[in-house]
Amino acid sequence: MNDFSELVERRERLLPALTEARADAFLVTALPNVRYLTGFTGSNGALLLTTDRALLFTDPRYAAQAPQESDCDVKITKGAFTKELRNWSKRLRIKSLAFEQNRISFETYSQLKESARELTLKGVSSAVEKLRAVKSPQEIEAIRASVLLNSEALKQALRHFRHSMREVDLAAEIEYRMRRLGADNTAFDTIVASGQRSSLPHAHPTNAPIQNDQLLLIDMGANVAGYASDMTRTYAIGKLGRKARQMYRAVLESQLAAIDTVRPGISCMAVDRAAREVLSKVGMDGLFVHSTGHGLGLEIHEFPRVGRREKTKLEPGMVITIEPGVYADDTGGIRIEDTVLVTGDGCEVLTPTEKNLVAL
Amino acid sequence: MNDFSELVERRERLLPALTEARADAFLVTALPNVRYLTGFTGSNGALLLTTDRALLFTDPRYAAQAPQESDCDVKITKGAFTKELRNWSKRLRIKSLAFEQNRISFETYSQLKESARELTLKGVSSAVEKLRAVKSPQEIEAIRASVLLNSEALKQALRHFRHSMREVDLAAEIEYRMRRLGADNTAFDTIVASGQRSSLPHAHPTNAPIQNDQLLLIDMGANVAGYASDMTRTYAIGKLGRKARQMYRAVLESQLAAIDTVRPGISCMAVDRAAREVLSKVGMDGLFVHSTGHGLGLEIHEFPRVGRREKTKLEPGMVITIEPGVYADDTGGIRIEDTVLVTGDGCEVLTPTEKNLVAL
Repeated sequence: MNDFSELVERRERLLPALTEARADAFLVTALPNVRYLTGFTGSNGALLLTTDRALLFTDPRYAAQAPQESDCDVKITKGAFTKELRNWSKRLRIKSLAFEQNRISFETYSQLKESARELTLKGVSSAVEKLRAVKSPQEIEAIRASVLLNSEALKQALRHFRHSMREVDLAAEIEYRMRRLGADNTAFDTIVASGQRSSLPHAHPTNAPIQNDQLLLIDMGANVAGYASDMTRTYAIGKLGRKARQMYRAVLESQLAAIDTVRPGISCMAVDRAAREVLSKVGMDGLFVHSTGHGLGLEIHEFPRVGRREKTKLEPGMVITIEPGVYADDTGGIRIEDTVLVTGDGCEVLTPTEKNLVAL
Repeated sequence: MNDFSELVERRERLLPALTEARADAFLVTALPNVRYLTGFTGSNGALLLTTDRALLFTDPRYAAQAPQESDCDVKITKGAFTKELRNWSKRLRIKSLAFEQNRISFETYSQLKESARELTLKGVSSAVEKLRAVKSPQEIEAIRASVLLNSEALKQALRHFRHSMREVDLAAEIEYRMRRLGADNTAFDTIVASGQRSSLPHAHPTNAPIQNDQLLLIDMGANVAGYASDMTRTYAIGKLGRKARQMYRAVLESQLAAIDTVRPGISCMAVDRAAREVLSKVGMDGLFVHSTGHGLGLEIHEFPRVGRREKTKLEPGMVITIEPGVYADDTGGIRIEDTVLVTGDGCEVLTPTEKNLVAL
């Protein structure tokens, strides 16, 4: 069951964006944003929000589902949605309409403009996405459940690990366990990369056997009841050389240092800097080629980005990943990633999986 | 290895669209279209195509991969791509630029307009998508491999079917088998729906046990080497009532009748009509609430749409699904879906899986 009072509150939190855009109504078309504001989980929906009305447009396939999931006024439309929008804009005396300019295609924008010439359109960027950065207690519990399921799936899958098994077979095992434990699907393409392939930050699992005395990098996430999880662990297969062990220690120290800074009021760039400084001391900062982390929730990448130039300050209720990594062509790549909740006075690492170097 | 000569040919086939738009160059930004025209499979890329140049823009992560996969002139850009585009437009004396208006966000369009004021922008809809509707022999073999893998995965998964197993567990088994057989991932969220849930055309697998004397609908597809497959089968769990058996017979007859019409020169709407007419004779056309099928390839939904109002005529090399279904609230839903290749004088059903009613 949806908590409709939370939906009402979310829509109220969007109203200042309407005032700021000097618009009478907000047209929300990006599906995760529609879901966030209306509760509706279908694959076709748009929200028309004014200060006192919330209309959810969808098609006949969802005639039964939409009113169950959402407290909004559901309008089932058969033909072009833009025509229906025009009618409702007239009825509600909407003269200016804010729209999601970073999410709507240019073509849809043109159709909108064409079909409702009397409306003044006002492009707004990421207004709902910004709201979504701070999670409600309900959402935090949903993310926590997703994170725990993800960790449990890895634990179960690793019981089936055998030396020389193919990367794709371990990926299959991981995704199978996620599903059996109740995931809707994966939050992104699972990465299982061994040896030198682990040095590619976005490697796809291959038919290659996972061989001894190498690194094994696993990056995995599940969608559970709509919410994503995201975790990376790097394992030793057999024995590692000195360089790989040094790299592992440096990444773990970097990750712990970054987590140590996470608290309300600190900027994302300061968290990123903490991760980089540790690596810099051992001359490995040049091998850390991506950002330290990102928010997650209904989508796998959300605000805030925990990167070099991101000035956003952390707030209680934000959920971010902390995932420094170093990548060396000869040795391979090492990344350690947890999902972290910003609390009232610091943070809570949601991911329970062991982080010390484990040999498989 | 990519066949670069095929890539050259594809880009040549796009040039008439450039002439039609009266533009000097075409900016291709939708990733499946970029892949189709350049061979590049990365997650960030754009193609700038003129009559004699093909520039592929991507970021430093793909510095090694892009030149391996693509015959285009690879330009690695670090900052904003729009700035780079402006420089190249000047160097290549591009004055008017066609862009993919159905694929580009309004925001990206605005940035483009802002950063290259001297360029005349010309919105074009689905130019590359239209080319992609007709598959090359290479692509047909890729789809065939995907379809065969998908059918094999179902066969293997059904060996593990047990009465009262949960829908999610059968879905997990199916996806596990796909992966083990070499799929990159699923082409869409697998549907496993039993009993009344099968009457929802887009049901998600639930924790519900698959019970006796009911229908079981499975809709599944894999991505294999970039190409999608798509198949639906409906099974009897134990014994079905008379109505369900009648429905099954009607859907199978409808599907066979539609396939029977597939040949070069026939319109998509005529194929759709053939499916509907069979159902209409037994008073079930009202229960057939979606289109008869769709093209597939690099994406799961491509041109042409095989629907009521689609006038496009089939051509040799098109690959479409044929998937009539009927859905009754009390009895459940039945859908039978094959992937079908339009040949020189008719068609070939690529899906080898049994279509007569099977009881599990």
